[in-house]
Amino acid sequence: MSEKFAAVEIIAAKRDKFELSDDQIDWTVEAYTRGVIADEQMSALLMAILLNGMNNREISRWTQAMIASGEKMSWSMLDRPTVDKHSTGGVGDKITLPLAPLVAACGAAVPQLSGRGLGHTGGTLDKLESIKGWRANLSNAEMLKVIQDCGAVICAAGAGLAPADKKLYALRDVTGTVQAIPLIASSIMSKKIAEGTGALVLDVKTGSGAFMSDPKNASLLAKTMVDLGKKAGVKTRALVTAMDVPLGLTAGNALEVRETLEVLAGGGPGDVVELTLLLANEMLDAAGIKPKVSPEVALKNGMAMDIWRKMISAQGGDNQAPLPVAKEKMQIKAESSGKLLTLDALKVGVAAWRLGAGRQKQGESLQPGAGIEIHAKPGDLVEKGQTLLTLHTDESNRFDRAVEALVGGYQIGGKNEEVKRLPLVVERIEG
Amino acid sequence: MSEKFAAVEIIAAKRDKFELSDDQIDWTVEAYTRGVIADEQMSALLMAILLNGMNNREISRWTQAMIASGEKMSWSMLDRPTVDKHSTGGVGDKITLPLAPLVAACGAAVPQLSGRGLGHTGGTLDKLESIKGWRANLSNAEMLKVIQDCGAVICAAGAGLAPADKKLYALRDVTGTVQAIPLIASSIMSKKIAEGTGALVLDVKTGSGAFMSDPKNASLLAKTMVDLGKKAGVKTRALVTAMDVPLGLTAGNALEVRETLEVLAGGGPGDVVELTLLLANEMLDAAGIKPKVSPEVALKNGMAMDIWRKMISAQGGDNQAPLPVAKEKMQIKAESSGKLLTLDALKVGVAAWRLGAGRQKQGESLQPGAGIEIHAKPGDLVEKGQTLLTLHTDESNRFDRAVEALVGGYQIGGKNEEVKRLPLVVERIEG
Repeated sequence: MSEKFAAVEIIAAKRDKFELSDDQIDWTVEAYTRGVIADEQMSALLMAILLNGMNNREISRWTQAMIASGEKMSWSMLDRPTVDKHSTGGVGDKITLPLAPLVAACGAAVPQLSGRGLGHTGGTLDKLESIKGWRANLSNAEMLKVIQDCGAVICAAGAGLAPADKKLYALRDVTGTVQAIPLIASSIMSKKIAEGTGALVLDVKTGSGAFMSDPKNASLLAKTMVDLGKKAGVKTRALVTAMDVPLGLTAGNALEVRETLEVLAGGGPGDVVELTLLLANEMLDAAGIKPKVSPEVALKNGMAMDIWRKMISAQGGDNQAPLPVAKEKMQIKAESSGKLLTLDALKVGVAAWRLGAGRQKQGESLQPGAGIEIHAKPGDLVEKGQTLLTLHTDESNRFDRAVEALVGGYQIGGKNEEVKRLPLVVERIEG
Repeated sequence: MSEKFAAVEIIAAKRDKFELSDDQIDWTVEAYTRGVIADEQMSALLMAILLNGMNNREISRWTQAMIASGEKMSWSMLDRPTVDKHSTGGVGDKITLPLAPLVAACGAAVPQLSGRGLGHTGGTLDKLESIKGWRANLSNAEMLKVIQDCGAVICAAGAGLAPADKKLYALRDVTGTVQAIPLIASSIMSKKIAEGTGALVLDVKTGSGAFMSDPKNASLLAKTMVDLGKKAGVKTRALVTAMDVPLGLTAGNALEVRETLEVLAGGGPGDVVELTLLLANEMLDAAGIKPKVSPEVALKNGMAMDIWRKMISAQGGDNQAPLPVAKEKMQIKAESSGKLLTLDALKVGVAAWRLGAGRQKQGESLQPGAGIEIHAKPGDLVEKGQTLLTLHTDESNRFDRAVEALVGGYQIGGKNEEVKRLPLVVERIEG
């Protein structure tokens, strides 16, 4: 079979800073999915894209080509508008867990296709899998039934959705080509657009614990994704939010589910509640829903908790079973009295990862009970000897490397010293 | 086995414009040869090197690591100094053929490890293989015997010489990463240094038919290679020479051997003779030889021809057998009278390639008789209807695409118009 282009000429064009044509992009994504472009050719192209960039037209076409590599889902049979949220990932970011049932309680349908964690950031599916019996993998028919019965579903994306992205993501992971805005934006948006949601709110994290630690890059990524959503007819907006400090008081799978239950019971840490409500209001607004019951109320009166229980149960989860608890604990105590000035998200994330909460490679198993409990956040006054962090793991030989990761991860200063941290919402972007 | 580095961290360092340390470079080349770094990882690194560059220390260390990946040859048993020449490749560049026996006739030992052609430039081994019975592949013992008996040997580099370079070159060819000065320089110089020559003259081509068409880039490549040679204790110098117009009056394997025989018989085209003598004098000077018979005399009096015949015969070649002739011929005639102003090396090279003189992929066979005879060079006066080029091929259906490649490949102007072409020697670089 004669091919329309040669891989080397496409690589050379991007290497030499030329724009790729629509035809070239379509062929590249399609030929890579088909195996005609070899991995070693695609990785050279990805590095050229990372270093020389793509303009908005190229990114948009690349995204469309990834969508076209697989099936496109539709929710037209539902009697309510669909809306989804995507976070670029952070430490302690369990927001999807209370958010999806909450927004469903307020009248939207939430088809939330989620991923697993890699590196120091946690994955929504890993968190939910700490609930006994809960299944991430649903058929399209099962997914539809859960969303019809509960208003929300959180599950794994099927193999049919943007297969080009799956193949590319695995390649980017081993070739140092993850950190490119065109590639991140097209990867996220191809899955969300193929998922068929009518509206989308993006939570783009910035600060030490985020992939885009620089707020300028986070803002550019957010704008790029909002633009891609708009072009594809999805009502998209983005919040750039703080990830310099972990979200809430837990990082680790079962620990974060426990915190989720606190939030759904009307309590929980202030920052988690605040961000959940902010995102819920954005989602409802984007979906064009004026809720009869506000998210604030639905969280307090148990409506969101009811949907959570129904949704967990519909996917085989046992709401009554106790959550897993790690076998070993270790406390990190304050060396002096004063004000906690910093608590670095990246260092806490890496420590939790080393305790067994995360994985090094795709497919590795992890410890559901492992992670870190946070007893003080920046701004809190602490006493010498007070516990700042509790480390949890099943294997006590993991403590040393976790403690090592935490060196310089927090700082105690004078009671009148100023705490420097990012505001919870750094920027709001609407298409 | 625990590895010293991870491939992704090396790729990320070069991606982010950091220098690679000596340790990192050693490990990278060694781990790639061992298969621990995968092709898709190396191609991402190569693209990062192409776009972000390497400094002189990095290039030098990379070259040393490639040499260390295989055997290093030695010629200490010879009673004469060794000197070699390397050309970066061009159209009609048969200079190695008369040059090696000529320099041997003047008192040097010439261990000339050569390559095959790829793309529009010809390869020395392909040219010699048009001689009946001639063998390119010699054992180290055979190679030593030929150079001891004849003073010169032209043969293929053995598999033991810089195996890292062989693997890298094949990868660069399919990933758009050939055109990087650090990679070209280290590839050429690792083989030449491992070959064990005492002195080396580089012929770096520039102009349309060369890989480095821009003289500035050719000059930078030449300087980089001279620096690498110097650091490795090889007396190295370089000439940057013209490849805007084909060298001599033939492009194609058997056709170029025929022209070589004319030069060795004391005749042949002026530019081929001039460049051969220039390079011969540079080689003898670099090797510290004050010849009893000058190259000019050795070419005229048949001494070089005697060594040629002996060398061909020592490698199984039949000096008496007629050279292959292509089955089909086609003449390209002047459309008007006037002065030939241009004859583009790249277009002539591509046409010869399409006629069957070159190959598309490594390992393909080619037609020994195919190629192009040139009847007029820029500056010559031509009459309307006069033959400018004769195309040779075994398959007449190849003429159309060869003629297509020649469109715009030459230009006939008024008798008083000026011919713009590069001087034969653009620059001379001595370490």
